[in-house]
Amino acid sequence: MPRIDGSTIQGHLESLSVFGRPDGGTFQHGVSRIGYSDADIAGRKFVMNLMRSAGAAVRIDAAGNIFASRPGSDPSLPPVLFGSHIDSVPNGGNFDGDLGSLSAVQILRMLNDLRIVTRRGLTAVVWACEEASFAGAMLNGSRAAAGKPRPGEMTQISRGLTKTEAIRRIGGDPEKLETALIPAEKYHAYVELHIEQGGTLARNGVPVGVVDGIVSIDDYEAIVKGAANHAGTTPMQGRQDALVAAAELILAVRDAVASEAGAQVGTVGRLDVSPNATNVIPGEVRMTIELRDLSPAKLERLGEKIKARAAAIALETRTEISMTRAGHMEPALAAVEVQRSIEAAAGRLGLESRHLPSGAGHDAQMMATLMPMGMIFVPSVDGISHSPKELTSWQDCANGANMLLETVMNLAR
Amino acid sequence: MPRIDGSTIQGHLESLSVFGRPDGGTFQHGVSRIGYSDADIAGRKFVMNLMRSAGAAVRIDAAGNIFASRPGSDPSLPPVLFGSHIDSVPNGGNFDGDLGSLSAVQILRMLNDLRIVTRRGLTAVVWACEEASFAGAMLNGSRAAAGKPRPGEMTQISRGLTKTEAIRRIGGDPEKLETALIPAEKYHAYVELHIEQGGTLARNGVPVGVVDGIVSIDDYEAIVKGAANHAGTTPMQGRQDALVAAAELILAVRDAVASEAGAQVGTVGRLDVSPNATNVIPGEVRMTIELRDLSPAKLERLGEKIKARAAAIALETRTEISMTRAGHMEPALAAVEVQRSIEAAAGRLGLESRHLPSGAGHDAQMMATLMPMGMIFVPSVDGISHSPKELTSWQDCANGANMLLETVMNLAR
Repeated sequence: MPRIDGSTIQGHLESLSVFGRPDGGTFQHGVSRIGYSDADIAGRKFVMNLMRSAGAAVRIDAAGNIFASRPGSDPSLPPVLFGSHIDSVPNGGNFDGDLGSLSAVQILRMLNDLRIVTRRGLTAVVWACEEASFAGAMLNGSRAAAGKPRPGEMTQISRGLTKTEAIRRIGGDPEKLETALIPAEKYHAYVELHIEQGGTLARNGVPVGVVDGIVSIDDYEAIVKGAANHAGTTPMQGRQDALVAAAELILAVRDAVASEAGAQVGTVGRLDVSPNATNVIPGEVRMTIELRDLSPAKLERLGEKIKARAAAIALETRTEISMTRAGHMEPALAAVEVQRSIEAAAGRLGLESRHLPSGAGHDAQMMATLMPMGMIFVPSVDGISHSPKELTSWQDCANGANMLLETVMNLAR
Repeated sequence: MPRIDGSTIQGHLESLSVFGRPDGGTFQHGVSRIGYSDADIAGRKFVMNLMRSAGAAVRIDAAGNIFASRPGSDPSLPPVLFGSHIDSVPNGGNFDGDLGSLSAVQILRMLNDLRIVTRRGLTAVVWACEEASFAGAMLNGSRAAAGKPRPGEMTQISRGLTKTEAIRRIGGDPEKLETALIPAEKYHAYVELHIEQGGTLARNGVPVGVVDGIVSIDDYEAIVKGAANHAGTTPMQGRQDALVAAAELILAVRDAVASEAGAQVGTVGRLDVSPNATNVIPGEVRMTIELRDLSPAKLERLGEKIKARAAAIALETRTEISMTRAGHMEPALAAVEVQRSIEAAAGRLGLESRHLPSGAGHDAQMMATLMPMGMIFVPSVDGISHSPKELTSWQDCANGANMLLETVMNLAR
């Protein structure tokens, strides 16, 4: 089997990077290719031209997702689906999404050039607007393909456009959005190559990650109520300091997460103090607690641990602490057979691999509701993403493209 | 010696309370009598009429402070000065300042009615704008009388007025502000009656507080720098979470303050997180640390303890923590001879008394730079102040007025 080399991937990534590049910048200055924007439309056009020059049949669905299909030798078998997205966050990098999308297209090109015919058909996909840069909602295109629209989202206005207008701009058909739903059994499996966005692979010098799944997320809002009072005249033992109680709760989150083995994480990312004045004892603190792990049962258990600790802290600090579930996202587990194909590909390529969960969300989590799903990760230097500093070496990019190629070829047999 | 009864004080406080009362409210709804406002001007007029009807000579100094003088039998001796303020914070209560001011005027009235002549002259004073409700600066009138203007304050605009315009509105003469300075030896001593604004007296059922002094304040700003990162993809052990470090520092402040006996207090009142998003590990936290005690040496020691702990926390959490002094206020100690006079007054009135520091600032702290100073505290129910809920019983108000009377009579001998 031939290989995809680093300079080919580099060329494609650099060519795509000009769409949404900051004025006067270079590749190193990152990209702002917000979903549905002019830069996104220009980037999509570039990618569609690449697809056509690869001999593929290009189709845009009602949600604006782009599909490039190449028939297999047995038309009765469902084809293999693989790809990613090309939109970015504002001030994002040139690897998140782009690497998986352009590698998918390059696979079609290479097979076309070499006239290699697979048993199953191959379909490369570029999902519309994966990032939460439009109306704050992630996975806009793949969510529509999974038949999971959100109530009222089509009339929500973001960056001056309704979702209806936005989808129409990129060639979708918002009135027929339900036709974007991918029927069961239509595809054999879905594979996505992506940069890790965390530092696990880079730190350990492992070139390939086999994703176990995309984590479950439990979001809580905690409200700590104490009593705002004069910071000079209220003795320490008479205080009901909401911020002292919140500080104990922040450390309780850290300690609960550390109390079990595993890759779970817990974060207090938002915290607002009231009245937030130098000389007033804080009367109320509102904070978010976000827990992530592949296992919803573990998240449930950690949530209960934190709640129990919150009750004890409230008693100790003479405050009231409420902790309510603000959101829950189910995990999306990778299919064992796709994981096996990815492991086998790493073996054939002689690349060390390691299993890990994805702490970030991906289009793959929507596909997991429809078909067997798998993801391949390659290292992100220092774990940085959603930043112009996002970086994956050309060698790691090429490794990823070849891993995707081997995995897809294996699944298409 | 005759006594002032509760109903007299109640009558005066209720009469004054209408100036700045919220529309449709009652005495219980508190007051907004911001310094230099129309309500303040109306309240000052009411008080000046009371002073004149007490037979006193009324004078407004260049800073807008009101002095009501009653001669003594020996004009060669410096008179005794006593009083407080009548301005309030927005949505304040009807006791803070008002009780001390109206009790001072009532003393002049009673002595006038009874034709009692003291050896030293007596001067009741109502200081202009004590609260930090105008341009954020406290003690505007008494600070001018102590010769401590702040650079540039006369042209600073607050509530649509410069300080120059504001002082002119209440009958002051901003061009001759330096004439408001009270010369050394002009008065024998200064005494101020005030509600405690804390809960120590009320909680312990003690009717009279003998103030040891007004506390010293050290203000610090702490900046915790970590690394903002993806809350899903960054493992716990790789984090540099600025909010976790800040939580440790909040508890370190509490623990340092508790590590020594005494009435010292420490407060983290303001805390701001950046970027403050649910799914991003906090990259930076800015917080204030305020320490108060009568002893500047103790504050220094506690500050050093917290700094040492901050350095250890930074190491443990892989963050950087800077902690810089943002302000320092010297303590204002009450004069021992005035404290003795207050204790003797409590003895004569058969009232239990207790020594305590004032954690809040008062006009008395400015007078302490010019002459022997003393303060009498009466209980605040639940320690509440700067709120419509501020409450002192009429009996406690009368006790305070009689304590002031006895103390002043003793000092005027």
